[in-house]
Amino acid sequence: MVETRRPIKVEEAIERLMKFSTPGVVTHVPIEQAYGNFLGEPLIADHDVPFFNRSPYDGFALRSQDTVDVTRNEPLKLEVVGEIGAGSVHDTVVGENQAVRIMTGAQIPDGCDAVCMLEMVEPIDEAGHTYILVKKKFRSGENISFRGEDTKQGTELASRGSYINPGIVALLATFGYKQVPISQRPTIGIIATGSELLDVGEPLQPGKIRNSNAYMVISQIIRAGATPLYLGQFSDHFATCFDQVKRALDKVDFLITTGGVSVGDYDYLPQIYKELGANVLFNKVAMRPGSVTTVAKKDGKLLFGLSGNPSACYVGFELFVRPIIRTYLHCVNPLTKKAMGTLGADFPKPNPFDRFVRGHVTYKHGGLVATPAGLDKSNVVSSLAKANALIVLPGGTKGYTEGDQVQIMLLEDQEGLQVSLDG
Amino acid sequence: MVETRRPIKVEEAIERLMKFSTPGVVTHVPIEQAYGNFLGEPLIADHDVPFFNRSPYDGFALRSQDTVDVTRNEPLKLEVVGEIGAGSVHDTVVGENQAVRIMTGAQIPDGCDAVCMLEMVEPIDEAGHTYILVKKKFRSGENISFRGEDTKQGTELASRGSYINPGIVALLATFGYKQVPISQRPTIGIIATGSELLDVGEPLQPGKIRNSNAYMVISQIIRAGATPLYLGQFSDHFATCFDQVKRALDKVDFLITTGGVSVGDYDYLPQIYKELGANVLFNKVAMRPGSVTTVAKKDGKLLFGLSGNPSACYVGFELFVRPIIRTYLHCVNPLTKKAMGTLGADFPKPNPFDRFVRGHVTYKHGGLVATPAGLDKSNVVSSLAKANALIVLPGGTKGYTEGDQVQIMLLEDQEGLQVSLDG
Repeated sequence: MVETRRPIKVEEAIERLMKFSTPGVVTHVPIEQAYGNFLGEPLIADHDVPFFNRSPYDGFALRSQDTVDVTRNEPLKLEVVGEIGAGSVHDTVVGENQAVRIMTGAQIPDGCDAVCMLEMVEPIDEAGHTYILVKKKFRSGENISFRGEDTKQGTELASRGSYINPGIVALLATFGYKQVPISQRPTIGIIATGSELLDVGEPLQPGKIRNSNAYMVISQIIRAGATPLYLGQFSDHFATCFDQVKRALDKVDFLITTGGVSVGDYDYLPQIYKELGANVLFNKVAMRPGSVTTVAKKDGKLLFGLSGNPSACYVGFELFVRPIIRTYLHCVNPLTKKAMGTLGADFPKPNPFDRFVRGHVTYKHGGLVATPAGLDKSNVVSSLAKANALIVLPGGTKGYTEGDQVQIMLLEDQEGLQVSLDG
Repeated sequence: MVETRRPIKVEEAIERLMKFSTPGVVTHVPIEQAYGNFLGEPLIADHDVPFFNRSPYDGFALRSQDTVDVTRNEPLKLEVVGEIGAGSVHDTVVGENQAVRIMTGAQIPDGCDAVCMLEMVEPIDEAGHTYILVKKKFRSGENISFRGEDTKQGTELASRGSYINPGIVALLATFGYKQVPISQRPTIGIIATGSELLDVGEPLQPGKIRNSNAYMVISQIIRAGATPLYLGQFSDHFATCFDQVKRALDKVDFLITTGGVSVGDYDYLPQIYKELGANVLFNKVAMRPGSVTTVAKKDGKLLFGLSGNPSACYVGFELFVRPIIRTYLHCVNPLTKKAMGTLGADFPKPNPFDRFVRGHVTYKHGGLVATPAGLDKSNVVSSLAKANALIVLPGGTKGYTEGDQVQIMLLEDQEGLQVSLDG
């Protein structure tokens, strides 16, 4: 019996799915290992920046009140009573007509309230003392970076779920995060189905192809921020398959199967969901490729039934699995970032359904150009090597023409998009 | 004595540097670990794709010569003599007026040269045999994907040095790379200098700041594709520092120091290069920030003297260290990708030198918009968290205005730019 499935729109599928999307737990890693993870807590400034009034220049710290009557023709002679290297402090109060040599970044000594830049004065040595001649009046606060002027203690500098890039690592170090709270990566199981599949190490056989989806999905899982756990291939025997899925669910946070979700004789997944008592959120999406993509839920765990077709599998992962991973990682923007750009080649296939085409984004004349991968049969395989985006081609047209404005999902982006902004 | 340094242009500095840039060795990892590495050899198709003539549809394989006289009104009855599931083959030659049920992707049986799609015929059961009624004439080759039509055996599908993304992993699996040749990541040592530096775990002290550069650079090294080895902070004692650098060079492929590269009293690096007998390629670059960035070479190893100023350190790394890492990884395009975009805010500072400003790229109306980080003092710290680009502002102007067209270096990009295209 061929089951009849009602296709739903992609947006509706994502909406249904995101209702069951939950954040995971927080763990800690040493700061050296923080890069490339996601912040498990907001990053908070633990102190004012600067932490003390400091000199932005190499020069001489002085008291502005000493310079009130100074002019170019009536310069003031100040005695240099000390030198402050980076990291050291001057431990006495600077008195009338005194100055202190100060390095960039050093703390302004007590008594001083301005800095004269090094290149503006010429030091004079007289009888074992050093003096400078100041030829201008200084305002109180001139050439001083004040405590807290960059950032006040307690400010949130990056939100929970932010991708930890080198800039964030610098902030984590500045604010004393020797151990960094990060979102724990979910573990995602992968089971490949298809009796035509050979493992990557096997020699080719008539009628068979090597299993590429499992390894592709492993990489997509890592790119999205999760940890893959490859559980191997399904057997051809239903009871064994059912048992494989049941056991897999104990080991993982989410489970992906590739293939076996259609309505053919060899497609066990629909029956497995049924016998598991899983709640099928959807099993047909009005999109190409990947219309048979199925998502089900069992005991709080999501099961993603991706198509066995490589492009459908790829697209199904990015549309449906990635936002679930990003939510688990506490990302504020769990959806993939979208940008408008120009279609780089004709795409003549008409289609009633929305199409998500793997493509390659380049930059031309200040804009994005997205070219579909594998339009031309003779490069269908190699063009995949370059795919870094999904080109969104809404259904109901007779195809698209080079130069059309299209929406592009940027797969290498780490900032994402809020759920509410998607549409 | 203050040494006089002659500044050279950024392009000249990169050109000098790249002359000493050499590729590293190749190693192998299991395909499960290949993602995010760089191909150590070109990826070659080890077989034709498809590997056999196959059916792109669910349907019936048949012999076109049987259908020569068929019309809608004079249909032909074919006996269905077998069924080919995915991965299985039909082991006899199909004879006159016979057909075979065939699944998508399965191998076309001997004798057949066309496929009739499933939805075009209605099977009939008669006396234990199954028949189909074909109502049109078929061309030889109709609805068949021919061996090699996607890719021929021996085709190079991705060049050496390509960043291994999920698409490339799929190709590696398809072509049997159970072990993947990858470029070995260079090990890059980091020594931080500056007596004002506290380690990230230390409480704040008057006049001191926590060392953020080392951890920032660790992250930049990982992002660029190399392995960081943090060797700690310099002592305040010259002989010890010299010894630290000498010992470090035995352990690493390249060495980065942060700070200590100016001409001040506490800047030991120039003297260390001298006593090492290192060949200083340049020690002043006509750029802001980071004009004191120094690169030297000793016994085939490059020593990068980055500034202690965090933004100068960041920029110096991306301009000079990253292309050396990418060359080591065999990348065809070792330079950072550049794109044109719109400046997202005024940048009023005039400067005689080229400026590289950390910024945040967004996409608006099909184009790139790059906004400088930390223009406004009150967000100088937090804006760093978003930096994903360097905005290139050529020198010799009175500043730049929002809306100006500018060149943007995309730091999260993995495709890069050829050396010869840079300029």
